[in-house]
Amino acid sequence: MTKYVYFFGNGKAEGGAEMKNLLGGKGANLAEMTNIGLPVPAGFTLTTEVCTYYYANNQTYPPELKAQVNDALRKTEEAMGAKLGDPKNPLLVSCRSGARVSMPGMMDTVLNIGLNEQTLKGLIEKTGNERFGWDSYRRFVQMYGDVVLGLKPQDKKEIDPFEKILHDLKHARGVQLDTQLTVADLKELVVRFKKAVKERTGHDFPDDAHEQMWQAIGAVFGSWMNDRAIVYRRQYNFPHDWGTAANICSMVFGNMGDDCATGVAFTRDPATGEKVFYGEYLINAQGEDVVAGIRTPKKIAQLHEEMPSVYRQLEEIRIRLEQHYRDVQDIEFTVQKGKLWMLQTRNGKRTGFAAVRFAVDMVDEGLISKEEALSAGRIPPDDLNQLLQPIFDPESKRKAIDEGRLLAKGINAGPGAATGRIKFFADEAEAWVAQHGKANAHGERDPNGRVILVRQETSPEDIRGMQAADGILTAFGGASSHAALVSRQMGKVCIVGCSDLKIDYKAGTVTVGSRVLKDGDFISIDGFTGEVIAGQVATKPSEVVQVLIDKTLKPEQSRVYQQFAELMSWADSVRKLRVRTNADKPDQATQAMAFGAEGIGLCRTEHMFFDHIEPMREMILANTPEERRKALDKLLPFQRADFEGLFRAMKGNPVTIRTLDPPLHEFLPHEPAQQKEVASKLGVSPEAIARRVKDLHEFNPMLGFRGCRLGIVYPEITAMQCRAIFEAACNVQKEGIKVEPEIMIPLVGFLPELKAQAAIAHETAKKVFAEKGVEVKYLVGTMIELPRACVVADQIAREAQFFSFGTNDLTQTGLGMSRDDYGSFIRHYLENDLVPKDPFQVIDFDGVGGLMKLGVERGRSTRADLKIGICGEHGGEPDSVKFCHKIGLNYVSCSPFRVPIARLAAAQAALGK
Amino acid sequence: MTKYVYFFGNGKAEGGAEMKNLLGGKGANLAEMTNIGLPVPAGFTLTTEVCTYYYANNQTYPPELKAQVNDALRKTEEAMGAKLGDPKNPLLVSCRSGARVSMPGMMDTVLNIGLNEQTLKGLIEKTGNERFGWDSYRRFVQMYGDVVLGLKPQDKKEIDPFEKILHDLKHARGVQLDTQLTVADLKELVVRFKKAVKERTGHDFPDDAHEQMWQAIGAVFGSWMNDRAIVYRRQYNFPHDWGTAANICSMVFGNMGDDCATGVAFTRDPATGEKVFYGEYLINAQGEDVVAGIRTPKKIAQLHEEMPSVYRQLEEIRIRLEQHYRDVQDIEFTVQKGKLWMLQTRNGKRTGFAAVRFAVDMVDEGLISKEEALSAGRIPPDDLNQLLQPIFDPESKRKAIDEGRLLAKGINAGPGAATGRIKFFADEAEAWVAQHGKANAHGERDPNGRVILVRQETSPEDIRGMQAADGILTAFGGASSHAALVSRQMGKVCIVGCSDLKIDYKAGTVTVGSRVLKDGDFISIDGFTGEVIAGQVATKPSEVVQVLIDKTLKPEQSRVYQQFAELMSWADSVRKLRVRTNADKPDQATQAMAFGAEGIGLCRTEHMFFDHIEPMREMILANTPEERRKALDKLLPFQRADFEGLFRAMKGNPVTIRTLDPPLHEFLPHEPAQQKEVASKLGVSPEAIARRVKDLHEFNPMLGFRGCRLGIVYPEITAMQCRAIFEAACNVQKEGIKVEPEIMIPLVGFLPELKAQAAIAHETAKKVFAEKGVEVKYLVGTMIELPRACVVADQIAREAQFFSFGTNDLTQTGLGMSRDDYGSFIRHYLENDLVPKDPFQVIDFDGVGGLMKLGVERGRSTRADLKIGICGEHGGEPDSVKFCHKIGLNYVSCSPFRVPIARLAAAQAALGK
Repeated sequence: MTKYVYFFGNGKAEGGAEMKNLLGGKGANLAEMTNIGLPVPAGFTLTTEVCTYYYANNQTYPPELKAQVNDALRKTEEAMGAKLGDPKNPLLVSCRSGARVSMPGMMDTVLNIGLNEQTLKGLIEKTGNERFGWDSYRRFVQMYGDVVLGLKPQDKKEIDPFEKILHDLKHARGVQLDTQLTVADLKELVVRFKKAVKERTGHDFPDDAHEQMWQAIGAVFGSWMNDRAIVYRRQYNFPHDWGTAANICSMVFGNMGDDCATGVAFTRDPATGEKVFYGEYLINAQGEDVVAGIRTPKKIAQLHEEMPSVYRQLEEIRIRLEQHYRDVQDIEFTVQKGKLWMLQTRNGKRTGFAAVRFAVDMVDEGLISKEEALSAGRIPPDDLNQLLQPIFDPESKRKAIDEGRLLAKGINAGPGAATGRIKFFADEAEAWVAQHGKANAHGERDPNGRVILVRQETSPEDIRGMQAADGILTAFGGASSHAALVSRQMGKVCIVGCSDLKIDYKAGTVTVGSRVLKDGDFISIDGFTGEVIAGQVATKPSEVVQVLIDKTLKPEQSRVYQQFAELMSWADSVRKLRVRTNADKPDQATQAMAFGAEGIGLCRTEHMFFDHIEPMREMILANTPEERRKALDKLLPFQRADFEGLFRAMKGNPVTIRTLDPPLHEFLPHEPAQQKEVASKLGVSPEAIARRVKDLHEFNPMLGFRGCRLGIVYPEITAMQCRAIFEAACNVQKEGIKVEPEIMIPLVGFLPELKAQAAIAHETAKKVFAEKGVEVKYLVGTMIELPRACVVADQIAREAQFFSFGTNDLTQTGLGMSRDDYGSFIRHYLENDLVPKDPFQVIDFDGVGGLMKLGVERGRSTRADLKIGICGEHGGEPDSVKFCHKIGLNYVSCSPFRVPIARLAAAQAALGK
Repeated sequence: MTKYVYFFGNGKAEGGAEMKNLLGGKGANLAEMTNIGLPVPAGFTLTTEVCTYYYANNQTYPPELKAQVNDALRKTEEAMGAKLGDPKNPLLVSCRSGARVSMPGMMDTVLNIGLNEQTLKGLIEKTGNERFGWDSYRRFVQMYGDVVLGLKPQDKKEIDPFEKILHDLKHARGVQLDTQLTVADLKELVVRFKKAVKERTGHDFPDDAHEQMWQAIGAVFGSWMNDRAIVYRRQYNFPHDWGTAANICSMVFGNMGDDCATGVAFTRDPATGEKVFYGEYLINAQGEDVVAGIRTPKKIAQLHEEMPSVYRQLEEIRIRLEQHYRDVQDIEFTVQKGKLWMLQTRNGKRTGFAAVRFAVDMVDEGLISKEEALSAGRIPPDDLNQLLQPIFDPESKRKAIDEGRLLAKGINAGPGAATGRIKFFADEAEAWVAQHGKANAHGERDPNGRVILVRQETSPEDIRGMQAADGILTAFGGASSHAALVSRQMGKVCIVGCSDLKIDYKAGTVTVGSRVLKDGDFISIDGFTGEVIAGQVATKPSEVVQVLIDKTLKPEQSRVYQQFAELMSWADSVRKLRVRTNADKPDQATQAMAFGAEGIGLCRTEHMFFDHIEPMREMILANTPEERRKALDKLLPFQRADFEGLFRAMKGNPVTIRTLDPPLHEFLPHEPAQQKEVASKLGVSPEAIARRVKDLHEFNPMLGFRGCRLGIVYPEITAMQCRAIFEAACNVQKEGIKVEPEIMIPLVGFLPELKAQAAIAHETAKKVFAEKGVEVKYLVGTMIELPRACVVADQIAREAQFFSFGTNDLTQTGLGMSRDDYGSFIRHYLENDLVPKDPFQVIDFDGVGGLMKLGVERGRSTRADLKIGICGEHGGEPDSVKFCHKIGLNYVSCSPFRVPIARLAAAQAALGK
């Protein structure tokens, strides 16, 4: 018989930390804490297999479940000395979700299960606290009504119906705080709540404690498939078939009086990584109050004064947990009448800054090994990006402050600098960014398309808007609030608890004193300091960039840089994949070298042509090979100079140069006015230009006259490019710098194409070497970016001295999906799980990846030591990098700023982590 | 030591017919004829390996060649009792090319090798015929000067320089015919020829007989790589690395007097297939005179009267050869002083009509088996096309004749009916067709784009123009002339030897009596009767079509039909592949059934939408699912009626229906004027239409929002189409007709796409069956037309009940090559052997074929009995059909007129022939 239920309590649990897949993270850690002797209220976990069963069987439970739950419940009742539904001595329980990974706030929780008018009496008698009793009951009715019975706001501008009732009553009573309500008021609230439930849902509020528990379990399992949980899993690539566990825990109360409290804490600072006990608590409150961000809680250090013995106990637990779990923990605790109860522990979400610091510090402390420090669980490679992002330029910030634009200061919950337009609603933020936030060809985004999401507080419904925004600013909530938590995970700049902000959603304004900013106005937030500034503030490079690239900061001046560099050196010592960069110009190349690039994996020569567009246009407009050669002769010195610059910058590292790739019409003006202007410059008729543009028009340019097809029909172009490469190589080699050009032929599908182009390269090399009296080592290889090339890679490898996967085009052709056009359906596809991930962001492992595997296998079947890389944009995406490692590539190539990310991802791949 | 030279002579040869790959067709058959005792002049063959060696080793010969040639030459001299270069008793030889397949006229030949002023004296003494001697010598100088020394016209309008000298001398002497020239004139010619050679080439004419032979051998090997030979091989897909053999044969002379003759013949009529001895000869001539078409020869039957014993001997040989080779032979012979010599035999090229008749007759005669009759060597499947092509409408032709438009009558050398514009030069014909001859979307070609190539005679240089033309008409030459031979092979309509035509190339006119037609005028030629008619003549369907489709002819009234049908029945009995058709409408379906289709492999539903464009446009312009559904409701009855028609026409055979595939913008008008018109019809604003067109604009529509992506984003479209299919199926099944719909989802790349669309189909089926109270067997499958689909075919096969390869799109995506855009480079690619064949005509076996193999293997790894077909246009192309057989497909699907071709190709595939 399958064991579906795991009990924990009385210092002994059936489960343990290693059983996360079965018990979920929360359940496994409750068991673990029980086993290591921490004070955990007794309870039991319904496994994730129950959830899987539930969805596989038309939302029913395994037949044996009931008996197992009853058994575990009995043990819990024994441990806690109370009984669920017992009018005299009632046990109250919570029902909490808990998947194998934390999905903060995505799923549902119900507290105070077991209350009805009878057990309420027992509770009041037991605690001697009528107010507490009725407050617990009204909370229960409210939460159960929302989560289980579904009484929710019907659109985003409706106030929560329970909150409205509460608000109305407070208004009627002329009071401000919940705590000012009398017991009679609370009784009245319960009546009104139940009435609202009945009216809006048609359901009577259930009194049976066991029914309440089973309904809550159903609601928790149901919440696994709610919209925001699905979106969240999609975002982090967690499978939908994992399922959640459901945890039934005995209730302990932080809201029974001033000797009670509830709090959340991190064993170190999850924003900066500093080794300080970091957290918040509220006296006389339930746990949800802290996380929800409605009341601004106190800093954990204050607990030292308010409850010194509890604080000491917590400090011990803090150290104990870090030693035990060997990672920074995020804990929840409740103090009931002076007694500390641990309700949760888990590995703490962290910013990229904190992740690096945790890792390096813990290695220094001897807590973990370097290999452990590198693991993806501790540092998702993308998070390194935060260390490279710009910070506010002090000059510009000072000026803003001098101008009186400093609005307020909040809690710095996500480091970084962000400027953008104010949006008050997540969906509006999302829409604005979708419309205006596209990056240009150089990957740069217009400030106009950036958004700061400004909210009272955030909730799980806001997750998409948070994703779209550059920064998040909330008026309420502390460092453990939803906004802070999620921002840290997403690496967003974030300020929370900025209580000076008065937000009016209806008016679409945020007011600080007399100053009013409207929806769409610019605002700037400094996530390092918590400063909120009206208008835009200029940025400057991050510390790491200042040290590595700008050299305006010395390494010893920046701890962030030092720890970053240390981590990178560990990564380099374990990774097998080489990391190159995609760079077209010497400054990019130099930058990439500073970030650790070991060569250029893709230099797009057409970028050079755009810089010298006139002779390029003459070349395209040429009517004879003669004319074409004349124009090419003009281009030659430019190309040669460009390559010389690149070779010098790369200091002996290999440089892969792709011959001309884009369709020729891209170099010609398409508008009549421009055509006229260019015509007069080049001394041709505008009609000639218009005619050539028309001749070059294609229905599907992606599949047209481009790539090596250009160099094959116009071999003189390839010859000129090769001459420029070899002349530059000889010249630079004569300067005493080693040069290793790798000529890469794009869009090869057929072996004879490569042969024809390689022949030109070899012939040109021979000529140039003879002219220059010097020989340079070089290779001729090919992009593998067509499905055909993968299929016949064995043939192509006969000629190719290296392969480089062009996964952008390989994705477009392999999937028959144009990156310029897939916008019309891809969102629908992602939202409906028709594709696993956006295939232009993460390699489509099964499809495009399958073609790549074929290409690797077949290519190496001809040439066992074939060097193979990737130069598509996937080369800087961690999961894709890991895939490249798995299928045996030699290197990845990515944009300069992604080089450190690729280095870390490569290390994780090598470590199998 | 490799044997490079094979001797034949004295009734015994070292080679034989089975050695074609090594000795070439000519060499192998000379050896074979020698061995079976036919009178063949002695000689020897340099193998194709010499040619291969020659090209692999910088145009040099194997070291051992010289000794082997000398040895074989000695044997030849012994056999013929004369010696090469001997002034007293000179042996003359020819040097002829001969690849493993016949390439008529593509390569070079040199006759009368061994002549110089000394040996000429010996020849004259030996033959006692001074005139013959000098005529032979001037012919030799002319031919050797042209072929070996390269003295050729420098452009197409220059007269051959030797012909010009000859013409000038005849003019000076005031004579018309070569035969009227005196011996002194011939001597003068030799002097002038040699002078011209020296002036134009800088070479002295060589006198050494052995040097002449070796130079001629070099020229023959060199001609393997001349432009026209390369084009020819490319057209017929023969590899360039086969190489040619070179045959040195003792000369025999048909031009020593009136007891001499030379001729060519077919053992049966190669145009109609009739079992008659069919050929031509010239008295007192060399063989080249017959083939060149300059003198119009006599019919072979006349030889019976002129040389009765030779004729009898030839008749015996005719029967002997057919028995021996078991196929129709194409022979060359020479009669020297009353003695018959056989110079060549080979399988005769034939028209499609003749091919079918030969095959069926020879089976009747017991000469060959049915399996042999079906072989591709005897009937290239494409040649069946000739039996299906239109013939002139008798009514229209009679009217043309009544109007006096019958110009002349020539020799009917290629059956069929062709009307087109007169073009006098091959390159102009080619250019005209390239510009005007494109087929429209329905595969129909404008009469304006058709060409009749009108020439004095054709030569191998004209081959591309002949390919482009619909018909060929020559003034000179007989049924064995180049024009006739090549036309037969290409299946072109052809009339030769139409001596009433006076062609003036310079003026660009053809004159018959007083009637003058110009370049570009229309002309019509009847290849069945030889009639040439001015202007256009309407056509009507072929006999086969009249019997099968129009039913205007009874089977017993058409021999052509009967033999066609018999052959088809044999094909059907051996083939394993099923043959379906691509048809969208009942009449096409009926036609295809008549041609033997066994189901519909592709019904494109969008064609139906184009017929009911208004509601379709409403659907596309809809702003809400509601509006869309309303428009779809209007489309439903049309689709249902269309499907009912198809199901009825297909009489129980399976019908594969593809759901909506093309991008939506194709249904909207793109020009403002049309937009205005449509807007007023639909009651919307023109701006709304323009906006929607703009919204739907894509950079690469081939890779955009189309295929199943439409049905996924707008599931109501798929639902409507499925409803129409199932309602139609139920209705027709109630009529007592079996119905087997197969719903095919296009452009699937990801399993979940297919799942989502299949779910709609199954759900709709369930509903409709319940409504109609009847169930219909149906399948839901998918097109496999994306590389990804091939790679993950194992996943897709979990849901797909069948696969159908869409090789058009699979070629576009697999090769990254748009069919609309590849025109800018594909010709260059084909001419430079960068691609093996046009991949949109013949499946790219290695690339696209490799993906297909992957798709088949992986698909069947999930579902072992998966039904797999092909519905791209390759499905009717014989080599592609054979490939489909090889990789284990179940069926091919092609347009109705290609169904018989596919049936035959499938049979050949099954027979491995």
